[in-house]
Formats: sequence, structure tokens, C-alpha cells
Amino acid sequence: MKVKGDHFETIWINKSDPSLVQIIDQRFLPFDFRIEDLHSCEEMYIAIRDMHLRGAPLIGAAGALGMYLALIENSSEQISESYIADKAGYLKSSRPTAVNLAWAVDRLTDAIKGKKTTAEVIQTAKEVSLHIIDEERTNCRLIGEHGIKIIEELSLKKNGTPVNILTHCNAGWLACIDYGTATAPVYLAHDKGIKVHVWVDETRPRNQGARLTAWELQQHGVSCTVIVDNTGGHLMQQGMVDMVIVGSDRASPFGDIVNKVGTYLKALAARDNHIPFYAALPSSTIDWKLGEGATETPIEVRDGNELRFIEGTIDGKISCVEIIPAATPVVNYGFDITPARLVTGIITERGISPANKRSIFTLFPEKS
Amino acid sequence: MKVKGDHFETIWINKSDPSLVQIIDQRFLPFDFRIEDLHSCEEMYIAIRDMHLRGAPLIGAAGALGMYLALIENSSEQISESYIADKAGYLKSSRPTAVNLAWAVDRLTDAIKGKKTTAEVIQTAKEVSLHIIDEERTNCRLIGEHGIKIIEELSLKKNGTPVNILTHCNAGWLACIDYGTATAPVYLAHDKGIKVHVWVDETRPRNQGARLTAWELQQHGVSCTVIVDNTGGHLMQQGMVDMVIVGSDRASPFGDIVNKVGTYLKALAARDNHIPFYAALPSSTIDWKLGEGATETPIEVRDGNELRFIEGTIDGKISCVEIIPAATPVVNYGFDITPARLVTGIITERGISPANKRSIFTLFPEKS
Repeated sequence: MKVKGDHFETIWINKSDPSLVQIIDQRFLPFDFRIEDLHSCEEMYIAIRDMHLRGAPLIGAAGALGMYLALIENSSEQISESYIADKAGYLKSSRPTAVNLAWAVDRLTDAIKGKKTTAEVIQTAKEVSLHIIDEERTNCRLIGEHGIKIIEELSLKKNGTPVNILTHCNAGWLACIDYGTATAPVYLAHDKGIKVHVWVDETRPRNQGARLTAWELQQHGVSCTVIVDNTGGHLMQQGMVDMVIVGSDRASPFGDIVNKVGTYLKALAARDNHIPFYAALPSSTIDWKLGEGATETPIEVRDGNELRFIEGTIDGKISCVEIIPAATPVVNYGFDITPARLVTGIITERGISPANKRSIFTLFPEKS
Repeated sequence: MKVKGDHFETIWINKSDPSLVQIIDQRFLPFDFRIEDLHSCEEMYIAIRDMHLRGAPLIGAAGALGMYLALIENSSEQISESYIADKAGYLKSSRPTAVNLAWAVDRLTDAIKGKKTTAEVIQTAKEVSLHIIDEERTNCRLIGEHGIKIIEELSLKKNGTPVNILTHCNAGWLACIDYGTATAPVYLAHDKGIKVHVWVDETRPRNQGARLTAWELQQHGVSCTVIVDNTGGHLMQQGMVDMVIVGSDRASPFGDIVNKVGTYLKALAARDNHIPFYAALPSSTIDWKLGEGATETPIEVRDGNELRFIEGTIDGKISCVEIIPAATPVVNYGFDITPARLVTGIITERGISPANKRSIFTLFPEKS
């Protein structure tokens, strides 16, 4: 998607220097747009661990490119199996709970097994990394191509007046390679000339909506307005929301959606006001073993400091203030579960499915 | 209620110097507890306008005491009717939309009409001010005495394990004289030895929950935990909330509740999880002319800077950071409407009523 008028993705190999990986450093957004140069496996490890980049699909690609950098670093000598295993374990430990990270690192490690020369190993690692990036990009684009139909229909009903879409958190291209998941139908609709406007939930405590989603939508020229998380219900009551699209961190094959805490409240308001509620997700997000209601999903309790401290700027300088005193107890649940009964449908790379087991398995028959 | 172990109310006439009015200056809470001395009508005007104090019942009392200060200031000469009218208009203009303010100022102005000597005028103004304070205190205490029954029943059902109560915004004693509205049943239950724990919604954008409600509960020794506004739904799904109590800015005689934006989302989650949802309010909050659904209520659109900027501390010093860049559009709706169908009951100074017209008029027959 576009940044200051130019097309960007979240991670890439530098064209003139293939030993250099570059990323958008998300820590400073929206206050400052910075590209970070990563020259080594260790620099990639730090970038993943310290969240210079985040988002499941992006972390996978970063893990693969971290291995690629590790191999280049050692290219003057024969690359040993123990060196590869060491670096793979090291990278995987940067965000131990991220499934995509381990999956991508293992996929690359498997692919280079049996390659004889160092040049072959490095070439294969590069190809696998670029393939992973391409897959993620394609899945998001396909989600967009399926999801745009919903927006097109709403636009027709509204005689071309802007379709108002509410989203929560950041399921945008900054979490992926390009397009995003929840945002993919929005970007494709915008690029096709369909008028859209996005209500962006601030998304406390980390404010990914206000900081990332609003930034990326604006950079691409999509009209949007940031609201506090409390506001969506009122907007829906007033007829100011035509649809809700969110991403998902995990989904059950029954159509239950585990997503950023607060998603459930918006799904309730959508149902109460007869507004369609969609989750956009690549099928890799579906946990095929998860039972009905997704109730066995562990809900992460995160650091209370995410509530206590907030980052912003004072006279243009990034600063952090304490908004809740240390003596006040806080608790920070990261996710909630939206039951399938509140979900109109899931938008995947293969198409849109109602949120029920039979329909989802019809789209992914090989999983049944 | 208690602050650092001593009993405080939000506003009072100094005992040894009756020409001095003192208030808790809420601007610095929870970071700093300061008492402000108000010596003149102008100082009271500034205190109301710049929100050193806020909350409908408290603003009414402050308006009356502002008139009392105006009369003392002029006590060396005969107090003219035009002086009284001037000061009344001046005070009422400090928060023009606050109904309680105009009502209290007018009540005092009417009461001093016909009083001959300056001493009589001042004495009457003092009595009326103290009477208004006493009425507000009594109404809150009565709300507490009725509401405590709901908590007692829940406590019995839970065999004395803590009753978990979720609240939104600040409908606490800081908005009133003492007890508060939503908090009155909680304080009375706590004082009676019933175990209670309060989930305090942060309440973006002004964070009255995190800043004021959590502070006053903690000062009085009531167990509480601050959560971001997104969290309540998850807690209810997990069985961690036994009841919801909120205040109200305006209510319809049908039981519809206009309150801080986000209240509606919690009411939806309460219904979805079969949890009782109460609004605690003095009957003066009921707008008897309001129609079903309260849909004609104007919803205030407040300054977007309330979203963009947030106050906290850096190394103990109160500082303000910009968290949303000026170029990003924001909108700031102050309230939403919770329809009566989601409200279990309203807790008033006369008792608890189901949220329907017949029951509410049964409690207030003189209004029908």
C-alpha cells in the first residue's frame, strides 16, 4: 500500500544490496516513519522481539529472512547443520508464542537441507523467504477480492454514498506484507473508486487502531475517523455504520472468532442494530482442532504496564506518561471470543463462508 | 467518604472562617490530592468553568455557594437586586448546559428576595446552600440504602465471596456531595462488611473511571481493579461480573438511560450473559417529558482534543502528551442511550423500579 505516495510493503530485501533486509520500523508510527536496515540475524531477532514489526503473517516472513541473513553472515565458510539449528532456535525464541514464526523458520530450514554449496543454501533461503512473502501477499489480496463484493453491494444500496465500515485494532497491511486482512476489502474497494469511510476504534490499551490502522489508511488515501472504543455502539444506533470487519488471532471451524479484546462488544452492538459483522482471515488462522465456542482458547493476560503507561509526543518528541498510579490494581486481558452466532461470515482466501461448521468445511474440504 | 482515613465531602464552608468555601480540586486526581480555597464568586466561577469540580449534583451546590460568596463580598454595603442578578447570570454562564447549576442559583436568588438586612440575606443564602447540600447527600444515601439490598442478595447467593460489580465512568461521591449515585450501594455494602470488588472501566477519552472512581474507591478501602473499556464483555463471559451499576445524565420515564458513551455496550454484554444491569439516579435526573427510547436527547459532540491529548505523570510531574496526530480526523461523542429493554432496574431515592413507565410512575405518582 502507499506511504507518502509511494508503494511500500512491510519487509523486503534491498534491491542493490541483497545482503540487506529492510523493514518499516513500526515503533515510531504514527509519529515518525522510519525504515530500519537489518544486516544480521541478531538485528532481526531484536526487531522481532522488541516489536519493530508485529502481526502474525509479517513475523513469519521476518523469521525466514532472519535465517537468510544468518546464512549470508556465515557465507565465507561451509555452513554446518549445528549453525543452522542454533540460529533457527535463536530466532524462534524471539516471540515464542507466534505460530507463524516457528512455521516459517522450520519451512526454510527443511528446504535448505541437502543443498551442497553455500551459494545454493543462500539462494534457496532467499527463494523460500520470497515465496513465503508472496503467499502472504496473495492470501491478503484474495481476501480483498472476495470481501470487496460485500462493500460493492452496500455501496449500490447506498447509491454510491460512502460505505461506513467499523474496524477494531490493526488487521491492516502493517501486520502483513501488503493489503492486510480486515483492511484488504477496504483498500481494494477504495482503489476501484468505491466510496468508503472507516471508523477506527482506538483499541486500548496499545492503541493499534489510532496508531497503526488510522496511519496506514490515511497514507493510502482512505477516509477514516478515529473514535474511542466506547463509541461504536452509539454510531451503530444512529445508522452511521454499514458493516463491521475485524481480523482474527485464531478462529474455530465453527466460526467463533478470537480477536483483540473488545471485538465481542462490537459484535453484540452489530447484532442489536442488524449490521453485518465479518471476520477476515487467511485459513491458516483457523485452528481446526478447536471446539465449538472456542472456549478452550487460553486468553493471554498481558503486562499491566500497557494500561498504566501511554506513549505520545510532547513538542514533537516521543514521550511516555503514567496515566494510572502504580498503587491502583489493573488487569490486562488481551483477547476475547466472539461466538459464531454473532458473526455474519468469515472472509478467507477461498471465499466468504457463513460462520458455521458445514459451510466452512465446504470451503476447505481437505480439512474435514 | 474517606480520604487518607478522614471523612471528606466534595465542598464545604470552612468551620472557623465562614467566608471561605473549600473544595477538593479534582484536576490533579489521582496524582495529587489538593484542597482549594475559594474566597470569591469569581474564584467559584473559575472552579466550575475549569472543572476543578464536576458532576451535576456538585455543580448545583457550587453554584449556590458561589452566590453565597458573592453576597459576603458585598456585605459592607446594601446588596442591590441588580448586583444579585449580575452574579447569578455570571455563575450560570460558567457551565451553561448544566441544569442543576441554574436551578440551584435560581433557588437561592428566590429565597433571598424580600430579606431586608445584609446579614439576613447572607444567613438565608448560607441556609439554602447547606440545604441543597443536605438534599443531595440524603438522596445519594437513600439510593445506597435501596441499592444495597441487591448486593446483599448477590452476596448471599455467592456465600459471602466478593460480589463483583462493574461500573463505567464516575458516578461516585466526587460527582456529588457524598456517597455518589452508582457507588452509593457499593460504599454502604462495604461499610456493612459485605465483600465487594469493583471493575472500574477506564472510560476513555477523559478516563474518569481510572482517575476518579478508582481513586475514591481505594481511598475508602473498597477493592477495585481498573480495566480498559474493551474488557467488560470478556469478564462477563467468564462469569467474573455479578452486576453492573452505572449513573445517568438523563433518564426517560420509560427507563431509557442516557449516560457516558460506552454504557450501551456494557448493557448489551450484561444481557447476553444474563447479568443484572442497574442505573442509579436521583429522580431529578428523570426528564419526565422525554419520549420512549429517549431518542430526542441531543448527544453532545465534544472537543476532539479530549481524544488527542492525555494527561499523566513523568517522574511525578503532571504532563500532557499528544497520542493522535493533529492530521488524523477524530470524533468525540459524549454519551449514548441504553434502551429500557436492556435495563434491569433504576435505583432511586424512593426505591428500585423496573425500567418501565408504569412502575416508574408508581414510585413517583405525582409526576403522572
